[in-house]
Amino acid sequence: MSPPDDQTPAAPGPVATERSAYKLWTQEHVRYADTDSNGHVNHAVFLSYFETSRVGTTRNPEIGLLEQGENFNVVRVEVDYKAELRFPASVDVGLRAVKYGRSSFRLGQAVFDGDKCLCIEEVVLVFMDRATRKSKPLSAKMIAWLQENGATPG
Amino acid sequence: MSPPDDQTPAAPGPVATERSAYKLWTQEHVRYADTDSNGHVNHAVFLSYFETSRVGTTRNPEIGLLEQGENFNVVRVEVDYKAELRFPASVDVGLRAVKYGRSSFRLGQAVFDGDKCLCIEEVVLVFMDRATRKSKPLSAKMIAWLQENGATPG
Amino acid sequence: MSPPDDQTPAAPGPVATERSAYKLWTQEHVRYADTDSNGHVNHAVFLSYFETSRVGTTRNPEIGLLEQGENFNVVRVEVDYKAELRFPASVDVGLRAVKYGRSSFRLGQAVFDGDKCLCIEEVVLVFMDRATRKSKPLSAKMIAWLQENGATPG
Amino acid sequence: MSPPDDQTPAAPGPVATERSAYKLWTQEHVRYADTDSNGHVNHAVFLSYFETSRVGTTRNPEIGLLEQGENFNVVRVEVDYKAELRFPASVDVGLRAVKYGRSSFRLGQAVFDGDKCLCIEEVVLVFMDRATRKSKPLSAKMIAWLQENGATPG
Repeated sequence: MSPPDDQTPAAPGPVATERSAYKLWTQEHVRYADTDSNGHVNHAVFLSYFETSRVGTTRNPEIGLLEQGENFNVVRVEVDYKAELRFPASVDVGLRAVKYGRSSFRLGQAVFDGDKCLCIEEVVLVFMDRATRKSKPLSAKMIAWLQENGATPG
Repeated sequence: MSPPDDQTPAAPGPVATERSAYKLWTQEHVRYADTDSNGHVNHAVFLSYFETSRVGTTRNPEIGLLEQGENFNVVRVEVDYKAELRFPASVDVGLRAVKYGRSSFRLGQAVFDGDKCLCIEEVVLVFMDRATRKSKPLSAKMIAWLQENGATPG
Repeated sequence: MSPPDDQTPAAPGPVATERSAYKLWTQEHVRYADTDSNGHVNHAVFLSYFETSRVGTTRNPEIGLLEQGENFNVVRVEVDYKAELRFPASVDVGLRAVKYGRSSFRLGQAVFDGDKCLCIEEVVLVFMDRATRKSKPLSAKMIAWLQENGATPG
Repeated sequence: MSPPDDQTPAAPGPVATERSAYKLWTQEHVRYADTDSNGHVNHAVFLSYFETSRVGTTRNPEIGLLEQGENFNVVRVEVDYKAELRFPASVDVGLRAVKYGRSSFRLGQAVFDGDKCLCIEEVVLVFMDRATRKSKPLSAKMIAWLQENGATPG
C-alpha cells in the first residue's frame, strides 16, 4: 500500500555505512606497523586514518577553511568497528559534514574496502583561536563549507 | 525540604570524570612520539592508553577472565577529550564495568593527571570464540567480574 | 691528469642518496599522527615507511619470494636522517639489495621528496623458519632476487 | 701466556649488551598497540622507547642540559635487535654517553628484561640552535655531562 499523498515519507538521510553518504574522498593504505598481535589493524589506528583524511581536507590551502590563528580541536569521537582490516590493503576514506552549532560541528567519516564499510566515525570538533586556545564562533566560510558538505544546524 | 519516604532519590551513579568512579587502576606515561605537531598527545593515542590498561587487566592470568579460545573484540568506542596532555607526564588510567548484555559488555575508562580528568572512554566489547571468530554468550566468570566492577545488566 | 689506459677507475657504485640507486619503488604519505611536537615526522616513523615498502615488496605474492613457513627477521638497522619531513606530503620509497651471506642479507632503502633524499636506511634481515624460529640458508629464489636487485655476495 | 709487564691490556670498555655499561636508567612498559602481526613488539617501537628515555633525561629540567633555544636533532641511529619482546612486559632502558665531537655526540642505549638484553642502539645527535635550525658547538655544560656519563672526545 502506498502512502496517501499528504504522508510522503521524508527522503531518507544518508546511511553512514554506504559510500553514497560521502562526497569527499581520500586514499589510505595499511602500514605493516598498523597491525597488532591480533593480526589485524589496531582499533586506534583507524582514528589516524580518519584524522589524516579530515585534516588533509580541512587544512587544504586550496579549500582555505582556516584563517591564520584558527584551529580545530577534537572533543569527541564515536567509532563503530564493522569488519577487520589486514595488511596489505588500500582503502578509501569518506568524509561528510553532519551538524553544526555556534562554535562546534560534527563530521562523519568511514573507511571502505571497495563497497564494504569497515569502520565509521563521528567526530565533534571545536573551532579554536590558536592564541587564546579558547573556542570561537564558526566563521561564515566554515559554515558555508559545512552546509555544502551536508551539515544541518542544530 | 527532604523528599517524602516513598520518593527517596536514587543513589547517584558514578561520575565518569571523577576518580571515585573507578576501582581498577594502571599507570601510563607519555612517550615523546605520542605527541603530534600540535605539541600535545595525539587524540588517537588515548585509545592505546585505554587498551593497554584494559587488556592488561582483562587478560591478566591472575584474574583469569579468558579461557583458552576466548577473546574480546572492540565494536564501539566513545571518547570525550577534556584537557590536553603533554610530554613528559605520568597518568593514571581507571577502569570500571558499566553494562552487559548477552554476548557484549560496556566498560568505562578515564585518564587522570592527579584529580584532573583528561579523557574518558566508553568501549563496547564482544565476547568471541577465537576459532570461529563469532560472538558467544558471556561466560559466568565474565559476568561475575563485570558485576563485581560495577556493571548492571541491560 | 687522466688515468693511464690500464687504470680506468672502477665504475662508481650506486650513491644511496640518489634515486638512480633504487630499482623498486613504492609510495607513502605522511599521516598527521606521524608528526611529533617538533612539528616534523618523528624519526621512528621512517622505519615504518621503510618496513611497509620492504614487506609489501618481499611478501608480494606475485613476486613469491617466501614459501610457506619462511619469514624474515630484522636484526639491524642503520638510518641516516638527511632532512625534515612535514605533514602533508607524499614521498617515494626506494628499495635495493646490497649484500647477502649464508642466511642473512642487507637491503638499502631511501625516502625521497622528488629528487631530494630525506632519509636512508640499511637493514639486515635474517631468513627464518617460522616453525623453529631459527635462521636457515637463503633459498635459491631469494638469492636470485637479491642478485637481480643489486646485491653482491659477502 | 700472560702478557709482558709493559703490555698490560687496556681495561676492557663497557659491553653494550650488559647492564653494567649503563649509568642512567628509566622504565618502560609494552603497550598492546606496540605489537604487530608477528605477535611481538614492532622493531620501530624500540626507537620510541629509546627516544622517551633519552629525551626524558636530556631535557629533564633538574639536569638542565639545554638552555632556551638549544635543541638536539637525531642524525643517525644504529640498532641491533637481540631478542623478541611481547605484551605484557616491563623493561629497563639504559643510557650512556659514548663519544663527542665539536657539535655532535653519540649516545648508547639498551633495553633489558632483567639481565637479558633485547635491543641496543647507538644514536648520533647534533646540537642545534632552535631559531636558525643550524648546528652549533656543544656547550660546556653539555660536554661536562657527556664526560660524566662515559663519553670520550673523538
